[in-house]
Amino acid sequence: MTSPLDSIRIVLVATSHAGNIGAAARAMLTMGVTRLLLVDPLRFPHADAVARASGANAVLDRAQVVGTLDEAIAGCALALGLSARPREFAGRVLPIRAAAETAIAHADRGDVALVFGTEMSGLSNDQLARCGVVATIPTNPAYGSLNLAAAVQVACYELRVALTGDRVWQAPRFAPATTDEIAALDAHAERTLVDLRFLNPRLPRRLMPRLRRLFARAGLEKEEVNILRGILARIDETMRR
Amino acid sequence: MTSPLDSIRIVLVATSHAGNIGAAARAMLTMGVTRLLLVDPLRFPHADAVARASGANAVLDRAQVVGTLDEAIAGCALALGLSARPREFAGRVLPIRAAAETAIAHADRGDVALVFGTEMSGLSNDQLARCGVVATIPTNPAYGSLNLAAAVQVACYELRVALTGDRVWQAPRFAPATTDEIAALDAHAERTLVDLRFLNPRLPRRLMPRLRRLFARAGLEKEEVNILRGILARIDETMRR
Repeated sequence: MTSPLDSIRIVLVATSHAGNIGAAARAMLTMGVTRLLLVDPLRFPHADAVARASGANAVLDRAQVVGTLDEAIAGCALALGLSARPREFAGRVLPIRAAAETAIAHADRGDVALVFGTEMSGLSNDQLARCGVVATIPTNPAYGSLNLAAAVQVACYELRVALTGDRVWQAPRFAPATTDEIAALDAHAERTLVDLRFLNPRLPRRLMPRLRRLFARAGLEKEEVNILRGILARIDETMRR
Repeated sequence: MTSPLDSIRIVLVATSHAGNIGAAARAMLTMGVTRLLLVDPLRFPHADAVARASGANAVLDRAQVVGTLDEAIAGCALALGLSARPREFAGRVLPIRAAAETAIAHADRGDVALVFGTEMSGLSNDQLARCGVVATIPTNPAYGSLNLAAAVQVACYELRVALTGDRVWQAPRFAPATTDEIAALDAHAERTLVDLRFLNPRLPRRLMPRLRRLFARAGLEKEEVNILRGILARIDETMRR
């Protein structure tokens, strides 16, 4: 089964720290992105990369090492260059969310490269000019220094959300209580509260409306109504003793 | 100047690796989140934390170490617990994007905690039950193991985007060419192409419409029109020699 994420190439240019390559591989795989290209890395393969990949070795093992950026983006339908800092001659600059949507939109026309520069200074102006779109991650203006793998994580997260949306696991749904079960609970609670002399039927104030509002907002389940009525029944029995 | 991000507490529970604490501090500061609370960390303070914080020492220096999760979330208007794995008794489960919007929406009513569990197994069910909302990051179903600091990075990124949107730097805009300047360029290009015998005026095909379409799509600037007309003029001169 192929996914548009299979058309995505993550290109890391002249990475200094092998650990960052491993952490980037892990970040990619958590989002289902698996194709890693390394342009002239300082040290690779390296034990630090394996240590930080933490199980994403399949991505590291398949990583391709190439000599130039042009080789890494050859044949791509689109290359997006990541840049934190403003550049005077940048063309189209997109926030990473829109950039990821653009990447996914192009993925059926061929490979799409996301290109990341060095830890110290990012991509050069010449390297960035090889990319049709500049992508940038919104950051704190006073401290915009994302770790390389952290930037890869955010970018791949946005690619995944752009492709599949952000549906996530949900806790299992249990059977909801019916309206008559809830009405019976309300009535039971009212009787018990009167018996407890917590509720004065001649001066009821807003107690029952508030409880009903709380029950409604909670979206009670059948089992929860049973638990609450069990508690009320036990209070009733205790008072009768 | 206070920001709703100042109401955000990032709570890391029983973190094993001090390096992850430093990387989390860096991830936070890149997004303008500065309040870090550590519940019973295995090793802190620690040189690994400082090394990975990479300049975000202000966040580490201000980090509070507490003994229990309850202390860390005391007084919060809302606590959100991060969980990758499905839990049977979870209440409201939100993808991190909606969770971040909820967090920002609550930030004017008091502090809001985002709670992260251990590297190995996340939060326990009891710890998660202390949180009013479960937040989860969409991941690859086959490999959902985000590094702790990577999860903090994605969460803080979504907090920042929820607060400030994803406006990013743009390259400076230069003066756009006027319609008559573009029309003059079209006319000049057409003359030169005829002179070059690249364009046959009796059989023009779709050459000029295609060039006009390209120029229109590019959104030509004044200076670019001048450059293109300069090239055309040089071609004209060369042919006259």
